Amino acid sequence: MTYRPLIFVTNDDGINAPGLKALVDVARDLGDLIVVAPDSPQSGQGHAITLKDPLRLKRVDVFDGVEAYECSGTPVDCVKLGKHVLLHQREADLCISGINHGSNASINILYSGTMSAAMEASLEGINSIGFSLLNYEWDADFESCKPFLKEIMQHVLAHGLGGCKLLNVNIPAVPTALLKGFRVCRQAEARWNERYQEGTDPRGQKYYWLTGEFMNQDKGDDTDVWALENNYISVVPSGHDLTCYDAIEGLKALEQKAAVPYLK
Amino acid sequence: MTYRPLIFVTNDDGINAPGLKALVDVARDLGDLIVVAPDSPQSGQGHAITLKDPLRLKRVDVFDGVEAYECSGTPVDCVKLGKHVLLHQREADLCISGINHGSNASINILYSGTMSAAMEASLEGINSIGFSLLNYEWDADFESCKPFLKEIMQHVLAHGLGGCKLLNVNIPAVPTALLKGFRVCRQAEARWNERYQEGTDPRGQKYYWLTGEFMNQDKGDDTDVWALENNYISVVPSGHDLTCYDAIEGLKALEQKAAVPYLK
Repeated sequence: MTYRPLIFVTNDDGINAPGLKALVDVARDLGDLIVVAPDSPQSGQGHAITLKDPLRLKRVDVFDGVEAYECSGTPVDCVKLGKHVLLHQREADLCISGINHGSNASINILYSGTMSAAMEASLEGINSIGFSLLNYEWDADFESCKPFLKEIMQHVLAHGLGGCKLLNVNIPAVPTALLKGFRVCRQAEARWNERYQEGTDPRGQKYYWLTGEFMNQDKGDDTDVWALENNYISVVPSGHDLTCYDAIEGLKALEQKAAVPYLK
Repeated sequence: MTYRPLIFVTNDDGINAPGLKALVDVARDLGDLIVVAPDSPQSGQGHAITLKDPLRLKRVDVFDGVEAYECSGTPVDCVKLGKHVLLHQREADLCISGINHGSNASINILYSGTMSAAMEASLEGINSIGFSLLNYEWDADFESCKPFLKEIMQHVLAHGLGGCKLLNVNIPAVPTALLKGFRVCRQAEARWNERYQEGTDPRGQKYYWLTGEFMNQDKGDDTDVWALENNYISVVPSGHDLTCYDAIEGLKALEQKAAVPYLK
């Protein structure tokens, strides 16, 4: 009997999101699945975890024949609960998160529940991939990218992650024929240009509602944003370490300075 | 007239947290302050932002003579609202976040609302520092570290961040006389060893509640965890880039592989 990998599947758009269904459709050919996804949309939840409240987990039958659960918490909660309550001693061979409805390229990795779920699984030592399609619509076309998704999952199952902890994979929203393949790249130095829509609610209270556009200031042709603009699927090998190593030496002056006056 | 720097102050424990008061006490000597903090505790919110709901902002008088607001959102929302609604065209010279009640060393930077607020300010181009004391108690002693806090803020106001985007500063919970000064270091490769407390609620429904311990597997003496265990205040220069550069080359095989079969 051939070994069937165990694949943990999650997302941030919720258990009923078409993007999650697309991911399950691709992955079910490759191994045994266990799906744990939020019971409501959790976009923008970043790496939030639920500390103050208890969590609920409910078995659901949404993917024909696949073990699936909805969870009352955040995407990171889904991964933690999946790992500690459902997987028990079983080791997952791969965690896949998504397919997110909308881009998680560049610094969106910090805000994204999809990517934070993949990050959390990687902190648990599971090879992880987060997938996002550059189309925010609920009925976006997830068909075009399916052959590519299968290919990258197979690659990671066979060869691992080449030393990184997780992959941030973003897919241009174009037909298959226009997709040029994968581009392994770095996270672009981009940001959001934001503002608040101000209004007054029915009770006369002022409110603020976030809106804005993504702005890329990074001119490099080795970034995820460049790849996506040129119809490549961007693959950013990512990690957990935010240390800025180049700055350590320059800040050492602090060590000299502060030690003396308070140690009398 | 001497230039008074404009210092933006925030946290994740909420507007009434003693740690925030301690930070305001130190910073008010150094410049003009504007404080925007959550109206309720937001620990573990990570980089969560509020997209689906409007936000509220309320002027409060909690720090004698200091412009202060409470915000209905997450720590990152506080920074965004502060930047776009309250600061308007004014440029903040420094953002300080904390003092967090509890450690944000190592990978806690990913889960921490305190550090995510500092991170968000740095994405807006503001030099930022997140401060955390290794004591979770509400009535923790924040006095011991005050001289050090002042020193590091003065250093950053005068000399900048040496090329990084923000500092993750953690402080051992020991008397001033035992503090050995600052140690500039890297983020330790550590993780949480977690489990769920399971129970049944009054309505007969099963619940899961997160608990666990922080585990350091990193034996290096150049890490924040090492520094803290040795009574140093750890200073980790941090950035926004999670790219794992060493892994790019090894994953290039993907680029060859996938381009061919779908481009017929």
